[in-house]
Amino acid sequence: MHRYRSHTCAALTTGDVGNPVRLSGWVHRIRDHGGLLFIDLRDHYGLTQCVVDPDSPAFAEVEKVRAEWVVRIDGEVKARTPETVNTNLPTGAIEVFIREIEVLGRSAELPMPVFGDQDYPEETRLKYRFLDLRRDGLHNRIVLRSKVIASIRRRMMDLGFMEYQTPILTASSPEGARDFLVPSRLHPGKFYALPQAPQQFKQLLMIAGFDRYFQIAQCFRDEDPRHDRSSEFTQLDIEMSFVEQQDVFDAVEPLLRGVFEEFGNGWRVTQKFPQIPYAEAIRKYGSDKPDLRNPIEMEAVTEHFSGSGFKVFAGQIANDPKVEVWAIPAPTGGSRAFCDRMNAWAQGEGQPGLGYIFFRDGEGAGPIAKNIGPERTEAIRTQLGLKDGDAVFFVCGLPQKFYKFAGEARTRAGTELNLLDVEQFAFCWIVDFPMFEWSEEEKRVDFSHNPFSMPQGGLEALETQDPLTINAFQYDAVCNGYELSSGAIRNHRPDIMRRAFEIAGYDMSTLEDKFGGMLRALQYGAPPHGGIAPGIDRIIMLLCHESNLREVTAFPMNQQGEDLLMGAPSSVSAKQLRELSIRIAVEKKD
Amino acid sequence: MHRYRSHTCAALTTGDVGNPVRLSGWVHRIRDHGGLLFIDLRDHYGLTQCVVDPDSPAFAEVEKVRAEWVVRIDGEVKARTPETVNTNLPTGAIEVFIREIEVLGRSAELPMPVFGDQDYPEETRLKYRFLDLRRDGLHNRIVLRSKVIASIRRRMMDLGFMEYQTPILTASSPEGARDFLVPSRLHPGKFYALPQAPQQFKQLLMIAGFDRYFQIAQCFRDEDPRHDRSSEFTQLDIEMSFVEQQDVFDAVEPLLRGVFEEFGNGWRVTQKFPQIPYAEAIRKYGSDKPDLRNPIEMEAVTEHFSGSGFKVFAGQIANDPKVEVWAIPAPTGGSRAFCDRMNAWAQGEGQPGLGYIFFRDGEGAGPIAKNIGPERTEAIRTQLGLKDGDAVFFVCGLPQKFYKFAGEARTRAGTELNLLDVEQFAFCWIVDFPMFEWSEEEKRVDFSHNPFSMPQGGLEALETQDPLTINAFQYDAVCNGYELSSGAIRNHRPDIMRRAFEIAGYDMSTLEDKFGGMLRALQYGAPPHGGIAPGIDRIIMLLCHESNLREVTAFPMNQQGEDLLMGAPSSVSAKQLRELSIRIAVEKKD
Repeated sequence: MHRYRSHTCAALTTGDVGNPVRLSGWVHRIRDHGGLLFIDLRDHYGLTQCVVDPDSPAFAEVEKVRAEWVVRIDGEVKARTPETVNTNLPTGAIEVFIREIEVLGRSAELPMPVFGDQDYPEETRLKYRFLDLRRDGLHNRIVLRSKVIASIRRRMMDLGFMEYQTPILTASSPEGARDFLVPSRLHPGKFYALPQAPQQFKQLLMIAGFDRYFQIAQCFRDEDPRHDRSSEFTQLDIEMSFVEQQDVFDAVEPLLRGVFEEFGNGWRVTQKFPQIPYAEAIRKYGSDKPDLRNPIEMEAVTEHFSGSGFKVFAGQIANDPKVEVWAIPAPTGGSRAFCDRMNAWAQGEGQPGLGYIFFRDGEGAGPIAKNIGPERTEAIRTQLGLKDGDAVFFVCGLPQKFYKFAGEARTRAGTELNLLDVEQFAFCWIVDFPMFEWSEEEKRVDFSHNPFSMPQGGLEALETQDPLTINAFQYDAVCNGYELSSGAIRNHRPDIMRRAFEIAGYDMSTLEDKFGGMLRALQYGAPPHGGIAPGIDRIIMLLCHESNLREVTAFPMNQQGEDLLMGAPSSVSAKQLRELSIRIAVEKKD
Repeated sequence: MHRYRSHTCAALTTGDVGNPVRLSGWVHRIRDHGGLLFIDLRDHYGLTQCVVDPDSPAFAEVEKVRAEWVVRIDGEVKARTPETVNTNLPTGAIEVFIREIEVLGRSAELPMPVFGDQDYPEETRLKYRFLDLRRDGLHNRIVLRSKVIASIRRRMMDLGFMEYQTPILTASSPEGARDFLVPSRLHPGKFYALPQAPQQFKQLLMIAGFDRYFQIAQCFRDEDPRHDRSSEFTQLDIEMSFVEQQDVFDAVEPLLRGVFEEFGNGWRVTQKFPQIPYAEAIRKYGSDKPDLRNPIEMEAVTEHFSGSGFKVFAGQIANDPKVEVWAIPAPTGGSRAFCDRMNAWAQGEGQPGLGYIFFRDGEGAGPIAKNIGPERTEAIRTQLGLKDGDAVFFVCGLPQKFYKFAGEARTRAGTELNLLDVEQFAFCWIVDFPMFEWSEEEKRVDFSHNPFSMPQGGLEALETQDPLTINAFQYDAVCNGYELSSGAIRNHRPDIMRRAFEIAGYDMSTLEDKFGGMLRALQYGAPPHGGIAPGIDRIIMLLCHESNLREVTAFPMNQQGEDLLMGAPSSVSAKQLRELSIRIAVEKKD
C-alpha cells in the first residue's frame, strides 16, 4: 500500500465497503458523540468521515489529535446507516473505521480556524494565507481560477493561437502608468522596468511574422493598490496579423462567451455582443462601460424644454446651443417618495438636485410637469414610452460635463427599482473611440487613449479631417458595467504614426526617444495587426461575484502593497545596495 | 472576400487550381526569370510562389516591391508544370498568378536579410530581433518552444496537476543566488525581490492543501549571464503532497520521456530512467551529471597498485588509506598515439599527466604495465573486461580532489573514440545526495545543497548518525550530461528542520529571520510533500541541439544583460528616482 494514501478523501463510495483503505489529510473537524470520535478528514479533493470507538487500539491516539493536524488513517470502509447518510457529500454514504492513525504534521493553536464561515480581518487572512487558502470558499475560487485559465489556453490554441513568452525584465513601457524599476547591477545607474503589458513585444512578434499570438501575461503597474486593482495582474494578451477589427471580435467573442458559459453557473451569457459606438454609449448609458443588465436608456429631450416654462433649463438652452437635457426614464419609479429619494441622493453627490416627472392617473406630476405644462409633459412621456407608475429624471447642461453623473443616476434608478435582470453576463463591444480629444488644460489636441491605434480613414483622414472628428479602430469589451478588455487595430505605418503624433503636438524626437524600438521595427515590413487584452483577474472576479482581488488571488498583497506572509517589501543589506550602485534617499525607519 | 487573405501561404494545393485567391505576407524572395517575376510569398505558415508576367496589369507594381515588404496579392491558382513542381513545399504543386498587388508595409533597406543561411553578429541579430525572428531556423525554434510548453502543460493536467500562479513581486528568496530587487515607492527604503524560484510559494500551496501544483514559472537570478544561463529563465515548477521520492519520479519520468519522444525527432529516449546514487555517479562517471551516452564506467583499481612496482601510486596508497586509484577504461583506445594524446591533454589541463596501459598482442603495454608487471596488468584487464585494442587510464589520489578531472577524462576518451551513441536522450536520476558536507573553509559541517530537503532517516538520523553519512531525499534528473532538474522531498517538520539547521551551525534567530514565513507555515499542519523543477530552457536547448539560449528565446538579452532591441536597462528620470526614494551612487555616464 502507498505510504500515505490508497484513496483521496473524495473517492470512497459504497462500492468500497469492507475494504481496508489508507487516507491522509487534515483533521477538518473532530466530534465526540457519546464516546465515539468522529473525524472529518479533508484533503484537496473532499471530505471523508472517519470514526473510532473506545475499543479500537487507535482510540487513545485519535483523542490527542486536534483540528488541522495532518494525519494518515488506516481503516476499513463501512456503510453508514441510512439515517446518517449525507447526500451532500460524494463520500456521504460511507465512513472509515479507524484502525491506525499516524500524525504526519501537528498544528500549533490556530490564529484562524479553517472550519466554519466566520470572517476574519484582512491582516490575519493575509499573514496566515496558508490557512485562509484551506477554507472552502477561497480554496474553490483559486481552483476555479486555475480552471478558467486552463480553459482560456485550450480555447486560444483551438483557435490557432500560439503562446509565446515575452520578457519580464525589460525597458520602460509607453503605456503611461508608473513603471516598477529594477536596478541593474551590471550597468550601474541604469534600470530595467517590469512590463505594464507586453504591448510592444506582441507587436514585435507580429512584425516578426508569428501571426497569432497569445500569452497569459503577468503585468505590473506601480499604482496605489485598491481592492480591485493590484500592482501585479494577469491579462490574456492577444495579437493577430492581417486582421480588421471584426476579425478580433470574431476570435474573442466566442472565447469570452464560452468561458462565461462554462464557468458562469448557469447565468445567461450574451450570444451576440452588440457593438455600441462610444458616442452612443455615452448618450444612452452615460458611460463607456455600461451595465446592459440595466434596461434604462437615456434620451435627449432638449426640444421639450426649449422655451418652456421650466426656466432653469430653458434659460440654459437659450444661452448655449451646446446645452442639452437628457432624460433618465425610471419605469416603476412613479412615486413622489422614490423621486424625492433620488433627488436627495443627487444632492448628496454634490448636484443641485435631480428634476423629475412621475406619471399617475394619466398625467405627469411634480414641479417640472407643472412648469412645462401637460402638452410637453405628454410629449416627453410618449417619446420615452412611459406609463402610469413610471418616472423620468432630467439633467441639463453640457453633456461632456454631466454625462457621468447621468450615468450614475441611471445605475441608481435601475438598481433601486430592481430593474436589473441580475443573473446574466451582459456583454457588449464599445467601438469607435475618438482618436483625439481637446485638452482644456494644455489648450491643444491630444490622444484620447492609445496613440498607437490606427485612425479610421488612415492617413487621408489625418490629412483632411478635423482631428476631433476622427475615430480610432479601438474597442473595449464590457461586461455588467466592467471594462474587461481594451484593444485596437494598431497603426502599423510609420508615416501615419508620425502624422498622428504631429497632430497631437509631439515633436519627432520625443517619438524617437520613447518609442524608437517600435518605430524602427515598423520600418522593416510591418503587417496590419491588432489585438486585445482581456483582464484575467476581472473575468474571475465576475465569475466568482467577488469585488475584491484577494478573493481570487492565491497570494495577494494588501492595499498597502505589502505581502504580509512573506514579509515584502523588506529592508536589504548595505552590500546589496552597494552592488546595485544605489543609495536610499530617506531615513531608514527600521 | 476577407480584406487580407482567403488562405495562408501554406494552404493552397492542386485542389485550388482555377480559384481566385487572396494571400498576404512578406516578400521572401523575388526573382526575374526572363521577364516573368516570381515572388516567394512568406507568412508564419509557409511559402507560396506567386508569378506575374509583363502582360499583367499588376506587373509594374510588382516590379517595385523588394524583399521583406508586406503585400497583399490577389490572383488565380495554377498548377505548376511537372518539371517545376517543388515537392519540398506543401504548396509546391501550384503557383498563384498575380492579378493585383497591394503594398501593406514597405521595408527600409535591411540590416540583415531574412532569406538565406548567412550568420550575423549577435549585436545585429539582437538589435533587429524582429528580422532575426523571421528567419527559418529561429522562427521554427520559437514555435517549437511554444509547442513544447503547451505539451508539458497538457501532460501535467492529464496527470491531475493544476497550475497555480505565484507572485513575481515578492520577498527575497532563500535560494542563495543574488536577487533582483525592486524599490518600493509606497515603503521608502524597502524592496521587493523577483523570485529565484517559487520554492516557498509552492510549499505554501501544499501546506494550504492544493495537493498537486505545477507552474510554468519565470524565475530570476542576478548572476552574470552566460551563453547558457540568463538572468531570466523558465522552469516547470512542480510540487506534490503525500508523496515519497518515487512518486515524484513516477509523475515526472513519463512527462520528460513523453516530451522528448514527441519533439526529439526520432532520437531514442530512455524508457526507464536508472536511479544512480550520488556516490556511485561520482565513482563511475566522475560527475553527478553523467552523460550516459558515453559507455565508459570508471572503477577503483587501488588494490592492483597497492604495493606494486609503480611507486608513484603505491607510495601514495601506502601513505594515506583514503587514496584510491581509479581506472578509466577506453575501449578501442589501445594505441600509443591515442594514449599520448590523452596524456598531453591532461597536462594541458594542469595535471601531472595521465598514466595508461594499452593492450595489444594479448598483453598490456606502456610504462605502467612494465612497472606493475604482467600479473597485475592482467588482473586490471580482467576486472575491466578490456581486450586487445583497448586502453585504460589511471588517476590516483583523494577521490574528492580528482573525481572531476577523472570525469572529464572519461568524457574526452568517450568523445575522441566516438564511443557515444549520440542520437539519443539518455536520462537518469541521481539520488541520495549527501545532506551535509564538511566545509574546509569554515571548518564545520554545512548543508551540501538544499537545507529544506528531508534527511533520510528523519529526526532519528540527525540525532544518532554522523551528519556526513546522512543522505537527503534529494534528486536530479540528468540528460546527456546536463542537469535538467533538481528536486527534493521537503522537510515538512519544524522540529527536524531546527535540528538540521543546528547541525549546520545556524542559530535559530537566523533561521527565524530568513525563513520565518516558511517555518511559521510548517507549524500549522504541514503535509509530507516534495517536488522538482525541470528547466524549460534547457529542455528546449536539448531538443534543438543548441547550446546558446538566444537560439531558443524570442527576446533574449545579450551576455552583458542588455536588451539591444528595446534598450534596457536604461537611464530613468530624477522624478522616478525621487518617487522611489533612491539615489544613484555612481557617476551617470550618459
